[in-house]
Parts: sequence; structure tokens; C-alpha cells
Amino acid sequence: MIIVMDPNAPASAVDRVVAEIERMGSRAHLSRGEFRTVIGAVGEEGTLDQNHLASLDGVEKVVPIMKPYKLASREFHEEDSVVEIGGGSVPVVKVGGSHAACIAGPCAVEGEEMLYKIARHVRDGGATVLRGGVYKPRTSPYSFQGLGIQALQWMRACGDELGMPICVEVMDTRQVEQMEKYVDCFQIGARNMQNFDLLREVGKTRKPVLLKRGLSASVKEWLMSAEYVLSQGNRGVLLCERGIKTFEDSIRYSMDISSIPVARQWSHLPMIVDPSHAAGKRDWVGALALAGMAAGAHGVIVEVHYNPAEAQCDGPQALLPETFKELMGQLRQIAAVTKKEFSEAAVTAGA
Amino acid sequence: MIIVMDPNAPASAVDRVVAEIERMGSRAHLSRGEFRTVIGAVGEEGTLDQNHLASLDGVEKVVPIMKPYKLASREFHEEDSVVEIGGGSVPVVKVGGSHAACIAGPCAVEGEEMLYKIARHVRDGGATVLRGGVYKPRTSPYSFQGLGIQALQWMRACGDELGMPICVEVMDTRQVEQMEKYVDCFQIGARNMQNFDLLREVGKTRKPVLLKRGLSASVKEWLMSAEYVLSQGNRGVLLCERGIKTFEDSIRYSMDISSIPVARQWSHLPMIVDPSHAAGKRDWVGALALAGMAAGAHGVIVEVHYNPAEAQCDGPQALLPETFKELMGQLRQIAAVTKKEFSEAAVTAGA
Amino acid sequence: MIIVMDPNAPASAVDRVVAEIERMGSRAHLSRGEFRTVIGAVGEEGTLDQNHLASLDGVEKVVPIMKPYKLASREFHEEDSVVEIGGGSVPVVKVGGSHAACIAGPCAVEGEEMLYKIARHVRDGGATVLRGGVYKPRTSPYSFQGLGIQALQWMRACGDELGMPICVEVMDTRQVEQMEKYVDCFQIGARNMQNFDLLREVGKTRKPVLLKRGLSASVKEWLMSAEYVLSQGNRGVLLCERGIKTFEDSIRYSMDISSIPVARQWSHLPMIVDPSHAAGKRDWVGALALAGMAAGAHGVIVEVHYNPAEAQCDGPQALLPETFKELMGQLRQIAAVTKKEFSEAAVTAGA
Amino acid sequence: MIIVMDPNAPASAVDRVVAEIERMGSRAHLSRGEFRTVIGAVGEEGTLDQNHLASLDGVEKVVPIMKPYKLASREFHEEDSVVEIGGGSVPVVKVGGSHAACIAGPCAVEGEEMLYKIARHVRDGGATVLRGGVYKPRTSPYSFQGLGIQALQWMRACGDELGMPICVEVMDTRQVEQMEKYVDCFQIGARNMQNFDLLREVGKTRKPVLLKRGLSASVKEWLMSAEYVLSQGNRGVLLCERGIKTFEDSIRYSMDISSIPVARQWSHLPMIVDPSHAAGKRDWVGALALAGMAAGAHGVIVEVHYNPAEAQCDGPQALLPETFKELMGQLRQIAAVTKKEFSEAAVTAGA
Repeated sequence: MIIVMDPNAPASAVDRVVAEIERMGSRAHLSRGEFRTVIGAVGEEGTLDQNHLASLDGVEKVVPIMKPYKLASREFHEEDSVVEIGGGSVPVVKVGGSHAACIAGPCAVEGEEMLYKIARHVRDGGATVLRGGVYKPRTSPYSFQGLGIQALQWMRACGDELGMPICVEVMDTRQVEQMEKYVDCFQIGARNMQNFDLLREVGKTRKPVLLKRGLSASVKEWLMSAEYVLSQGNRGVLLCERGIKTFEDSIRYSMDISSIPVARQWSHLPMIVDPSHAAGKRDWVGALALAGMAAGAHGVIVEVHYNPAEAQCDGPQALLPETFKELMGQLRQIAAVTKKEFSEAAVTAGA
Repeated sequence: MIIVMDPNAPASAVDRVVAEIERMGSRAHLSRGEFRTVIGAVGEEGTLDQNHLASLDGVEKVVPIMKPYKLASREFHEEDSVVEIGGGSVPVVKVGGSHAACIAGPCAVEGEEMLYKIARHVRDGGATVLRGGVYKPRTSPYSFQGLGIQALQWMRACGDELGMPICVEVMDTRQVEQMEKYVDCFQIGARNMQNFDLLREVGKTRKPVLLKRGLSASVKEWLMSAEYVLSQGNRGVLLCERGIKTFEDSIRYSMDISSIPVARQWSHLPMIVDPSHAAGKRDWVGALALAGMAAGAHGVIVEVHYNPAEAQCDGPQALLPETFKELMGQLRQIAAVTKKEFSEAAVTAGA
Repeated sequence: MIIVMDPNAPASAVDRVVAEIERMGSRAHLSRGEFRTVIGAVGEEGTLDQNHLASLDGVEKVVPIMKPYKLASREFHEEDSVVEIGGGSVPVVKVGGSHAACIAGPCAVEGEEMLYKIARHVRDGGATVLRGGVYKPRTSPYSFQGLGIQALQWMRACGDELGMPICVEVMDTRQVEQMEKYVDCFQIGARNMQNFDLLREVGKTRKPVLLKRGLSASVKEWLMSAEYVLSQGNRGVLLCERGIKTFEDSIRYSMDISSIPVARQWSHLPMIVDPSHAAGKRDWVGALALAGMAAGAHGVIVEVHYNPAEAQCDGPQALLPETFKELMGQLRQIAAVTKKEFSEAAVTAGA
Repeated sequence: MIIVMDPNAPASAVDRVVAEIERMGSRAHLSRGEFRTVIGAVGEEGTLDQNHLASLDGVEKVVPIMKPYKLASREFHEEDSVVEIGGGSVPVVKVGGSHAACIAGPCAVEGEEMLYKIARHVRDGGATVLRGGVYKPRTSPYSFQGLGIQALQWMRACGDELGMPICVEVMDTRQVEQMEKYVDCFQIGARNMQNFDLLREVGKTRKPVLLKRGLSASVKEWLMSAEYVLSQGNRGVLLCERGIKTFEDSIRYSMDISSIPVARQWSHLPMIVDPSHAAGKRDWVGALALAGMAAGAHGVIVEVHYNPAEAQCDGPQALLPETFKELMGQLRQIAAVTKKEFSEAAVTAGA
């Protein structure tokens, strides 16, 4: 940690900072320049309190050198992590390293029949994990909020029948225990990326967690949220880039394509992109999905509907089944360029 | 609602949109320009599904005319709302209209003695509501997370003794029931502004809610979150601007000063500013507080500490008691310019 | 154009708006809803003054329906434009439609020998257009500002010798006339995207213009700047995405990958991506280049240096020659997926 | 300057960095931590090349300690600068320190009569400097572009007659020489804040320069642009905050209120706010003007029109003369709170 002093900080202020660094068990190195004194604190960074040091008189700024996350970092785990989704009644799908996966399905589960119909379409198109919302985070209290437990049961049955692990969003700490019995993978939505109690609760389960990036979260904050889950003992975290808020208003959210190489350099966790929520409009979903894979992602999560005009939620961004199938073909080609391979759909009796 | 068709949408697509508008109980007005057809849907906008219309073939975009919130809007409630905090064991503090208030205290309650000491300082400086965190949302799982229920009990006792209603942050739906017994005002943090389950739970209580704006929430989204609380029957919502994320890195968050006149034009709810979290550094807290009041806010929420270097949380942004007192003097002068008045601290026996 | 009236605008205000619309030669269609009156103005949108209408009493907002640019739009020119760079002493390189191109070279021309050395490397690696700055826009007045006319002459000679058209940034209206004699393609930097006098001056020449997107320009503003050039009669505009400013601080600029499908849907102009300036760090240049091509770009512009530590400008983002060559191999594969092909380098005597 | 090495940088890389620091005339201090080596370079920072150091193998990042601007900094000039506008045929208006000023007038000069009429209104309302655009930067090439030299002559004559110095925007290096003869203060628009050639040209004149902040410029970049002007020998720079681009779409630009205390802490230059361009809508201009003064600005620049619906440019944001006068009354009160005073309008014969 580096402490930069104000140009006119008195010697006593410098002494105080040095004393505090030593009290916390680190060594202090002074560099007195012509205009400023800079103090380096050498030791284990976790034991130094950045905030405390910044509060001391005469301190202009504190620059941390070490990353604030540990379990999520490449330094901790040099190789790419491979996360396994599924097992038990459904096949295991691997994501990470050279394993790419496509997670697809409806935005929200709106009925049993529509779910099965879409699930068959996405499986035939090449998806190996089924997505579908049962509790929906909606900006308006007056919008459709999801069918809850009933929809969850349909998801489970449908995943089992088609041989696809299921990925479902959890919104509230009170839902975790019950949902754990049904889902193969929890999804944490962008608006809950810093719902720390929720992160801790899913961290206590042993189901993998697809962690969407918050709409204004830096890559570092995103990895800190991953750290919350990891620190509870759950090592199955998948990062999911889904677009950030910027000034640009031509598209719903701006997919931050650079977060992919950055997060992959800093962390060993697998990276998924969600082009549907970023684009908000089906015309642009394909380009963003291809870009995500080309930038190094380990897969995509996309929304598909056979009749988007019927969807109660996010219809404009849902791909038609045939478009989805074509896109998967292109994604496989791009994956090959970046040395990854999409798993094949498991063929099961019920299919 | 206005539906703009693609330049080359066929007549059948236009007919389909018109039919859907009529099916939803509104009337459709067609304007066929040389290049484009525009359809106006006239009726009660709440009954029209924007998403559905946007999903139809040939639709380029859908422009809503009405605001998506109702109970939070000026149209619904023309006069400024006055929210009352306190009552029972403590005096009532009014906020809204011509009533301004200052909410102050430590960032986190770190001990009984420090709490009482700071509380006395802020009361003497002119604050009438006491703040203090007992559950702290921290970006790192390894940081101090608050003292919980013990700290909550100290807050209640301290507020009672000094005659100040208390305002405390709630982070999880599971905390609402217990906290309701203690607090005079719930605070919803910026990172939970779209934790919709939490909004609903505090909406079911009858304690006022200070709703901080999310770090990347538009004013419209913020008012939609207020609507979540209001729609449960709780009419005591205070909006709190605390800075947004922008590209500017000289300061922690950029206080969006224009949100104050905008939200006040669109909504009747009282508006508070939080200069401490925006600035992140005590040097700049005063300027932001004064600016907020000048822009039309009904008060401020600020962090104060007699020895910031001791604070376990956000010490660098805490004002010293004497600086706080001076600032209150200036705030009173600014309030007068915008026709508001700060309530006087209640004088109680324990003071 | 659609004019939304305030909820309590009087009938006289509505009449005034209608009268103004008719005075400007359009027809007005009224839709009186329960809460609001909405007026559609039907006619040629260019003849309506949005600003004027927005100034009238009782007007809440004005929503334009038509795009504000014409020559840059797909409606005006349905097919992809193919821009030709070069001719005369150097081969013609086509960009647009199915033609992809790689523009590469040093950030700044710092000497004759270094220029030739880098130029040979990039040509051997697969670039067909040579880039190199001679006037450098630097944020500090104390930084190296480029070698000017001398460097420009080296660029011309080098391009001629290696058979590569040259692309050079122009910064000031006073440089246009002289530079036109030397360059095959003007580059307009991000900070000059709305230097309207400069846009007009290069618009008067007949050399193509690579127009970098401003750091906070919307896609619409970018196309308006292209319109400035096109409106002077110069039809050779190439759009270049180079990253925008966002809150994310892990990388220098956030490449706005979605601008590629959006601008390509709205406009017929070719699209280039500049991963070097977005990344600011060579580690991430490759991923961004691949993502840009996968999203539909017609090529890349990249910086290359055989010894980046020697570069006076932007060394950290320069690719090494061997990395560049490898990247070109991957770019060719990605281009094939999106149905484009990179031109082969011309083989010339001097090579 | 602090150089942080990669966790696995070899000793040879560290040696190379040390050697380079010493070659540039500074001393290197090594801090070898358990995980990382950090090198402090002590000496005159201006002689160290950050870019060069960042390019060296094994360097993770370089953190500058000193500010990159000098003449604009508080360290260089501890007291607030007081800039004088006018002199000769018009009174001198002081801005900076305890001197506040109001600059007002039409957005664009559209005719002689309208100019005189508005100029009289703003002088009577309390403005002491007259603004008016003669070359207008417009996003569309088809919009009104200003009346040029004719309008400039009207401005000069009007200012002389009413005893008000004039402030006029310059857009192109080729305009500087001629305009210098007429204007009392140059204005550099937000889109030209990094038009470095233009900054240098106005820096060579001896007329003060009102430098608007770019729409996505950091405070640091803004001060670097001021440094361009100052480095040419022109010490009369006024900073002008006019709003930045953010995700918020309720208002045209988000006024970055915190830039005022930040820039005032870092620099001695006077600070003006432009609430008109930030708001884009007259309803919100007053609140932003008051907030700017409360945050510590030395004045405002506002647009006024007696009949905004007639304006060819930015009518919706122009204040009516009576509103302007009222606002000036409130601004004087706020100025008193922050220890500043608006100069009185000079009374001249022609008035």
C-alpha cells in the first residue's frame, strides 16, 4: 500500500502514518521527494486498513497495490476454473477452460406448455443448460412478477425430461433454501450483485452461481462480489457480463466487451456473456454474442421464444428458434478460433 | 403511447398493431407520413403493454407518453408531501414542503460510548434525526459488517435519551420485522434500490423510508422504486441523492445535482442529499451539502465523527463536530433563500 | 415529429402549436387523451424546427421520428458503401461490404528508420494501409507533439516504396490543404469529432476520411459528424470505434462493441475498430480486435512497434510484430464467419 | 512516480526499470514485498516519462504522484487568481477570489435589434458581461451556423454602448486573429476543449479565455487544457462547468457540481457555471445556477431571451428577462453565504 502525503503535511503527520503502519504489522519505507513524501507500507496488505490510513491528517491519497479479492484471483488459482453444472438427474455440463456452454430458454416461465416448447427448441439448437425465470425483478410493481414455485417445478421436470441442467434466478434470501432443492445453478441478477446477504446465502449452498455484473459495477467490484460467494465455501462461480450503463442511448445497455479479457486476466473464473439483456432488441443479439465469444468468453446465455409478441417479459429481445440455431453454428466457429469447444447436447430418452 | 413503425413495414403490420391497441381497450390514431407511419394509442396508458407492442413485427420503437409511476407523481399529489419521522418516545420531525431537516451521526455504530458522544455533538450542532449503521453493506466480505442487534438497541436508547428519532439502514428482508420495532425511519442503501423484495417488505410497515438512489439508477427508475414502497400502502418515502457513477475519478461519486429539481418537478416526495457518500472525502462535503440545499433539497444526511481516524468505516468522509456546526449555520442561510426552514432540536430532559 | 403537451396546457397553447406546425408546411394530428394532448406533425421533418416547437408554451417534449442525418443513413443508400483508399502511386485498398482491411503502423512517426522498419513489419504481417501520426493530439502541452511535415514526407515515401496507402491524422483546418497532397486517407481524432470547421474542410477534399468516434459521442452524434463531411461532397467516410468514457477504470476506454451493429444498421458506411487506443495496454488489444470483427466491423486499425519501450507515444499499447502477425491470422478466420475477406498486401518492387 | 511490478516479474526486469529511472535523473527506491516489488522514483517528476516506464517488461502499472499540470495548480499559485475582463472602451469586470460575475445574453446573435433588446434586459437584471454567439457549433450541418463577422461587430458596438465587456465563442484557429480585435473574452466550447491547436492560438493572445469543460473530460484533463493556454503566456483562464455526459437522460447534461470544489482545491483559476446548457430546459436553470454558486463558483453564464420561441438556437433553455432578474437576487444572497460579491453594472452614458 502506498500513502501519498499532502505537499505541506508536517513531519509529525508523516511520523504518525509510519507509526500506524508499524502498529498494523507492516514496515514503512519513506521516499522524501522535493515536493512530497510518499510512504510505502510493505507487509501483508490484508492486514492494513486503507480507510484508516486515508483518515489520518496530512494524507492525500492511499493507493492499494494488492488486489482486494483473493479466492477469485489468478494469483490464488493460476489455471482457469472449470465449473460443473448439473449431475444427478441431468448430465453434467462443464464451463471454463476449453469448455464453452450455451444457456438458453425463455425470459420468464409463463406456462408449462410454452416452457417445454421453447426448451425443445433451444436443446435442438445446441443449448445444454436451460434458463427460465420464476421470480422476475421488474422495475415496476405493476408488471408481471413471475409464477414462483409452480414455475420452478415445471423447470425441474422439463430439465429432467430433456436432460438439461436448469439455471434460475434467485432474488431474496428467503427463497434460497427452497430453490436449492430444485435448481442446478443459481442466477444472481445485475441489480442484486451487491445484495451482500443474498451472496452469502447462495455461497452457503453447493450449487454453482451465475453472477451477473451490476449495471455500474467495476470489474473489481464484480470480483469482490464473487469473493463473497467463494468465501462461504462455494467455489462454483460463473461471471456473466450483461452490459453496463453508459451515456449511449441507442441500445439498452452497453456490453462492456473489455471486461472479458480484463476479468479473465485477473481471475480464474469462467466468463459468460448475456447479449439479450444488453441489446434489448433481437436485431443486435447475434453480433454481441459473437463478439463476446471472440473476446474470450466461455459461453453465452440467451433468450429464445417461438412467438416473442406473446411474451410477458422482454419479448423484443428474444431470438426466434431458427435464428438461435444459426447463431449457434457461428458461435462454434468463433469458439474454435479462441480454442474452446461447445459441449454437445446430451441425448436422452425423453427427447 | 406512440408506436413508430419501420420505414418499410407492410400495411399488414400496421393493421396488426392497430388491432392489438384496440384489443387492449385503447383507440388507435394513424398518421401516415411520406416515410413512416406513426400510431398513437389513446386510452389509459397503464392498460397498454409497451413491451408487447414493441415485439410486434414492423415496430421500430414505442414511446410512452405517461409516466410509469403513479403514486409518486406530482399529477397524483400536487402539493409537496410532508413526511413525519418519529413520534412516541421521541419528537416528530417533519421533512418536506417548507420543512428542512438534518440527519446526522456516525457511519457505523461501533460502540455505545462513541455513539452517545457523536449523537450529542450532532444534536448540539443542529441535527434533529440521528443516523447510525448497524448492518453495513461492504464491498469486501472481509470488512467490518456492523454490530447488528446490539447496536440497534444502543441507537434506540440513545435516540430516546437525546430526543432524536433514529434512521437505520436495513439490508435484508429477514431484518425488517425486528428492526421495525426499533427504528423511526428505515434507510434503503443505494445498492438495494432495486432489491424489489426488500422494497415491498418495508412498504408493508408504517415507518418512513429514506430511499437512496442507486449508483446508476435514472430518476425515473428511482421513482419506480419509490412506487414499490408506496404501492404497499406506506406513504412515507423520502428520496435521497447520494451520487452516481460517472467517468470522473477525482471524487468517489458524482452528486447528480440536477436530480433534485427534476425529481421535485416530477414527484411530491421530499428530497434529501447525502454529501458524505458522494464526496468520500471531508474537504468536499460542505460544498456539496450547500449545493444540494440551494438546488431545492429538504435537508441533508451527513456523517460526523470526533476522531475519524478511529472509525472502522468511511472515516475519511466524516466531518468533525465543529465543522458540522459551522456547516449547519450556512445551510440555514441557504434554506432561507429557497424558502425552507430547519427544525430546531427538541430540548429534552436527558440532553 | 410528435409534440407532447403538458398535462395542464390550456387549449390556446395547443392551438398555437398546431398553427406553428401548419405555418412550417406540415399537417397536425391531434390526439386528446384523458390526461394529455399529443400532436403529431406530418410532413417533411427537415422543414420542422424541433427547437422552436419545444420553446412554445405548454410543450412538455418533442420527439423526432426521423433520423437527423440523411446522406449517412441506410434509407438514403441501402447497400454497404465500399470506400477506396489509395490509387496513383499505391494500390487501391477497398473497405466496406465484404472487403475488410487492416491499417497498422506506429503511433507516431519518430524517425525515418523506425518508420520503415515498422512499416515492413506490418506489411509482412498482413496490413494493407500504413498509419503513422505526424501531428499528435496530446493532453499535455509538455509532451511530444509530432514531427510534422518532415514525418509526413517520410510517410509518403515509405507508403510508395512498400505499396501501401497512408492514413494520417489531421488536427487543424490550417493543415488540410498541405496534407491533402501527401495522404491517401485523413484521420480525424476522437477529440476532434465535433470540430465542425475541420470536418467541413476535409469534406471539401476528395480523400477518404477515417472518422473516430468522440469519447462521449452517441452513435447518432457520430453519424451527424459523418454527415458534415458527406454534405460537402466527400463520400469516402469510414467510421472508427475507439472506445468511450465510462465509469470502468480497469481499462483506458471501454470499447462500445454494440456501436458496430447499431451503426451498421443505421448507416451504410464502413466500420473500423481501433483496439489499441481503447485498451491502452497490449495484453487486451487482441481480444478487442477479434471482438470488433466478430461484431461486424470491416477492419481494424492497430499500433505496432518492434521496441515499444522506445516509443515516445503510447508504447504500452503497441503490439509486437510477431503478435500482430498471429492476430492477423485469427482476424482472417473471424472475418470468414461474418462473410468478409481481408485484402492481400500488394507485392511491389520496393518490397 | 511509483512503479508497481507484475507479481512474477524477474529480477532483470526490476533492474531495467531502476536503470531507466536513474538514466532519467531520478533516484529509485525499491520495496520488495512478499508478492510484489514496488519502485518509487524520486526526483523531478516532469523529467520522468510515465509512458516509457509503463512500456517496460514486467511493469504492471505506473502511478504518478505529482499533478501533470503546473501553471494551473494551487501549488504554483496559492491565492485565487482574479481575472479581468474588459478595459479600454468598456469597464473592467473582475472574476475570481471574492469577485463574482454574471455573464448573460442570447445564445446566438440573430439580429442587431434582438441583441440590443436582450443586452439591455440582462444589464438591467444585473449581468456585467455580455455573451452572444456569432459562430455556432451545431451537431447538424443543416442547422443555423451563426452570422459571423457582422454579428461580431454588433456585439462590439452593443457592449461599448451599454458598458459591458463581451464574451464570444471562437471555433477555429483561423478566426482567432480577427476576433481578437473585437472581443474582451474568448469562449472555448465544450467540444473544443481538446482542440489543442485552438488552445495554443488563444493562448498567444492576451484576452482572457472562458474554457468550457468537455462533455467527458475529467477535471484533470480540463486543467491540462487550461495549461495549454497558460503555457503560451496567457494567464487569464476562467474554467466553466457546463455539464457532463452520464447515463441520466432526464436532463440534457448532468452538471458535475463536485467539479467546483475539486477544481478550486487543485487550481487557483476562477470557476464559472453554465446552468443553461446543462439543463437544456428553462425550468431547471435556476436551481442549477444557485447550486453552482453555493458550491463555490465565482459566477454564472446564462442565456436570456425575451421571446424564446423565436430563437434559432437553444430557445427552450433561455430564461425570460423577469426570471433572470429574480434569479440574480437569489444568486446575490447565495454569494454572500460563500463570501463573494457580484459586481454592480457600470452606469454608462449610452445606457
